[in-house]
Amino acid sequence: MTTTPTGLICGLHAVLAALREDAAHVDSVWMNEERRDKRSAEIARAARAAGVKLRRVPRTRLDQLVGAKNHQGVAARTRAVSAGSEHDLERRVAELKEIPLLLVLDGVQDPRNFGACLRCADAAGAHALVFPRDRSAPLTATVQQAASGAALTVPLYEVSNLSRTLDLLKAGGIWVVGAVEQAEKALYDVDLSGPVAIVIGGEGRGLRRLTRERCDALVRIPMHGKVASLNLSVAAALLLYEALRQRGSRES
Amino acid sequence: MTTTPTGLICGLHAVLAALREDAAHVDSVWMNEERRDKRSAEIARAARAAGVKLRRVPRTRLDQLVGAKNHQGVAARTRAVSAGSEHDLERRVAELKEIPLLLVLDGVQDPRNFGACLRCADAAGAHALVFPRDRSAPLTATVQQAASGAALTVPLYEVSNLSRTLDLLKAGGIWVVGAVEQAEKALYDVDLSGPVAIVIGGEGRGLRRLTRERCDALVRIPMHGKVASLNLSVAAALLLYEALRQRGSRES
Repeated sequence: MTTTPTGLICGLHAVLAALREDAAHVDSVWMNEERRDKRSAEIARAARAAGVKLRRVPRTRLDQLVGAKNHQGVAARTRAVSAGSEHDLERRVAELKEIPLLLVLDGVQDPRNFGACLRCADAAGAHALVFPRDRSAPLTATVQQAASGAALTVPLYEVSNLSRTLDLLKAGGIWVVGAVEQAEKALYDVDLSGPVAIVIGGEGRGLRRLTRERCDALVRIPMHGKVASLNLSVAAALLLYEALRQRGSRES
Repeated sequence: MTTTPTGLICGLHAVLAALREDAAHVDSVWMNEERRDKRSAEIARAARAAGVKLRRVPRTRLDQLVGAKNHQGVAARTRAVSAGSEHDLERRVAELKEIPLLLVLDGVQDPRNFGACLRCADAAGAHALVFPRDRSAPLTATVQQAASGAALTVPLYEVSNLSRTLDLLKAGGIWVVGAVEQAEKALYDVDLSGPVAIVIGGEGRGLRRLTRERCDALVRIPMHGKVASLNLSVAAALLLYEALRQRGSRES
């Protein structure tokens, strides 16, 4: 297992989500001592229930801790978020009882996009999020925050060689489907009901050539307007939910 | 027609999109005089082609013009973006040759969310975006920028009384479908193939009671993970594209 540095989460929603979903990774919580509202009481309760230390501090101390970020009067320090290796991913897929649904991000650079993709992967119940070590946004607190806590619950796999990982997945019977603007087939016309890894390219550049060459199928999201592309997380959500629809997975 | 104030667009992508998609509303472009790269040359070409004046200025002048925003060395001043009234909306719907597909935002406050929803509405080819005057993010440059130019192409309708507008749409044969987390039916289980207005609620609060009461159907997006909700624009995209799928509209 590789680990990423300890991070800070800020904001009511993100801190509460972290305390509720993955308290084991929350080290401590700081709260503006002037906050006396319902949301902060909720956070205090969640921290107490999880056995996480909460410290009431002056607002200026919070500002120092988190820098210029909008912390809404609350921040949490998290222990290292861990991402599995290629080997861990293989094991994860082999052990799945459900039909595998994976999301692969091929070099997403903007931490907000990365976090938003994580949030969508979580909502769609994806079994793993895979990304290349060298070409991706780091798993910083920004990512965790954008993901509203999802970073702590979707299994992450940081691989050194994405092409090799895709080959491994294919050898394991997983259909690798890449999103490409110019693809002939629309997402509705490709069978996503079996074991599938959906691959989304980075900002602007889309899928790299080596990644694209490894895809079993390329699909496009029909664009009916004038903008040329959708936000990456919107594209990821449309593909993941189309796979769910095709699987007849209509229960929440 | 009501109009909103003249705005500024910043950033390479947004300025280029505005010049290409709706040059008639672009007044002038400022560019950092030190930029000599491919993207800025592309913008200069687009401005020339559109007959829009481009001024090369020192970086400090750009900083003054746009404030603290990350302008990437380019900004454009736009003429007023106009939003139609309830009356204009009625006419728009009556004159449509296609099956109406409308997006209604019930009090979206964050300009970035508003812009992201606009971008999705554009991609899905929605015929109108409707929002209440008093409870929405203003149509500022931020919205235009988040929408990557889509704000300039999707017809916007700013209505004074959303409930009355929904009643009017219903009287015109449009099925009003609201997105609600606790709805019984999933989006796949509701017929979205006819004339439909999809209604998305504001951040945190969801649909207002009066809005919800006017909906012909309520749908939820199945949530399979631990995060409680999707980003508003992701929710809008999933519903709009599900309507497109049901209509068999698979061409881009």
